[in-house]
Amino acid sequence: MKTIPLLEPLAADLEQVERKMREPTHPDYPQLTTVLEGLLESGGKRLRPALALLAARFHPTDPDRLVALAAAVEMLHTATLVHDDLIDGALLRRGRMTLNARWSPETTVLVGDYLFARAAALAAESGNVRVMAIFAQTLMTICSGELQQIFDRHTPPRLDNDQAWQAALEGYERRIHAKTASLFAAATEAAAVLSGAPEVEVQALREYGRLLGMGFQIMDDVLDFQGSEEVLGKPVGSDLREGIVTLPTLFFLHRHPKDERVAAVIRGGSEDHLVRTVVAAIVESGAVAQAMDRARDFIARSQTALTALPEGEPRSILHALADYAVSRHK
Amino acid sequence: MKTIPLLEPLAADLEQVERKMREPTHPDYPQLTTVLEGLLESGGKRLRPALALLAARFHPTDPDRLVALAAAVEMLHTATLVHDDLIDGALLRRGRMTLNARWSPETTVLVGDYLFARAAALAAESGNVRVMAIFAQTLMTICSGELQQIFDRHTPPRLDNDQAWQAALEGYERRIHAKTASLFAAATEAAAVLSGAPEVEVQALREYGRLLGMGFQIMDDVLDFQGSEEVLGKPVGSDLREGIVTLPTLFFLHRHPKDERVAAVIRGGSEDHLVRTVVAAIVESGAVAQAMDRARDFIARSQTALTALPEGEPRSILHALADYAVSRHK
Repeated sequence: MKTIPLLEPLAADLEQVERKMREPTHPDYPQLTTVLEGLLESGGKRLRPALALLAARFHPTDPDRLVALAAAVEMLHTATLVHDDLIDGALLRRGRMTLNARWSPETTVLVGDYLFARAAALAAESGNVRVMAIFAQTLMTICSGELQQIFDRHTPPRLDNDQAWQAALEGYERRIHAKTASLFAAATEAAAVLSGAPEVEVQALREYGRLLGMGFQIMDDVLDFQGSEEVLGKPVGSDLREGIVTLPTLFFLHRHPKDERVAAVIRGGSEDHLVRTVVAAIVESGAVAQAMDRARDFIARSQTALTALPEGEPRSILHALADYAVSRHK
Repeated sequence: MKTIPLLEPLAADLEQVERKMREPTHPDYPQLTTVLEGLLESGGKRLRPALALLAARFHPTDPDRLVALAAAVEMLHTATLVHDDLIDGALLRRGRMTLNARWSPETTVLVGDYLFARAAALAAESGNVRVMAIFAQTLMTICSGELQQIFDRHTPPRLDNDQAWQAALEGYERRIHAKTASLFAAATEAAAVLSGAPEVEVQALREYGRLLGMGFQIMDDVLDFQGSEEVLGKPVGSDLREGIVTLPTLFFLHRHPKDERVAAVIRGGSEDHLVRTVVAAIVESGAVAQAMDRARDFIARSQTALTALPEGEPRSILHALADYAVSRHK
């Protein structure tokens, strides 16, 4: 398993999380085991379990329960990726064929469901009702956000007055909270609860996770505009191509509410050259830079939230992780 | 809400379960609320929440927690139906258009996921870690069974020796346990746990639920052979058409292991008249009657399991429900 250098101090714990995720659970169904192993091997940076492990380090925590919790967080994330790939019709993820490409859609739906269940079972191993309630609420939030994204797709926002602009911005932030920040917040909050941290620390860690997740997702949305295609593994502007409006597009439309080219791309079916023209216009307008500023603002606020916690290695790593989130490239 | 006359004594409690299931949870997303209301309105007999309500009646149980648990059971069942309809490409369920027919597959995947999460959140309201663990394990079992069904599809079983026959029978029973009996067992076990019943009663109620579920599913599989098409709302032999081997087919193949017509239908792509010929042959051979005998045997055993429980109205209704399960027509 590879992770980022910053997380080296957690290597042994992350290894245990990895083992926990791979524990065979239904030996009666060997084909299922094969599918799941392939899925877990494709890895990922394991950022979310690392957040859980770090958030629990402020107080002595039962290691088995913590490892189960961290594994539950990553399993929930993996489950949402499996269904996301199905929804997007994606054939590649992390350089490997998605389940969707290798198996039928039916299999993909059910494997995703199985992983949700496995995440819930791992959360149950934490032995803590509040932790399990956090998990269930988070999954509801994630799904409601994804559904809203589908309902909103291919609909150019109208930003011709201040109220409309505020509503659009709030809609976007609600959506990325649901999609990404809610799980970051769940990871840090649930781990803090499990560690028996006082409520003020639980809330500080939850807030840190939430703000970090917001900054992280805005950067993800920014990278879709400026990442190189080789690194992204997909064409630039793929959100726009799918009719999804993210922060750079919103900032651009705020300045140019009548730009018909952007609206046309959002409605869908545009030729590749028009998409590229629009992406370039958004980058050159300064809207991408403005979105990055907003991401950095969330990150700075996440670091401020940490000041409520005792100083030491866990806090330093969490602080550095926040910087990493806005400096990374895909 | 309509249920069966036998469940009249539970009408008030079932009404509360219904209200609990409809509690709005994400008012920020009005379209989601509309989708969910449509889904819950289409009803069903609410047999699974009734099992939970009855299983808790042997000891005084916190009514709010019990209602949340019963709602969780039905919500989990509803979630699996949503994904099943997607997997089968079904357009009608209980005489209404499925989500699948009205919305895109993406929406259907996410609404199902949302309902799984809602089920977990309701289970969390029970405030009982063991109850939540039962839920998570049950969902894993359900998914693993559905996956196995997909992997096994369109593969005619070879029943040319006793060992092969035993393996096929066990495979079938493992599959219907996963698909149906596991949730019946979870409903009765979790409710018994919540009521603080002694472990011997918990196990008796779990066993009752499991055996009832086995009998119930075999009857479902039988009805697919002998139900009228108007009542079924789909052509007879729809399992066979989908390449799924159920108990009547197994009994038939046990007697006629070389019947090439059955194997051809299971492999798929057969003309309607061949499917009808094969269905008629299976019914006339006595294999359907043999399957019904096995269903009745499970039902009788479920009633025997009840003898470990105190006599009274709850036990009588559970006993009668088991008879209902094998007498019902779709």
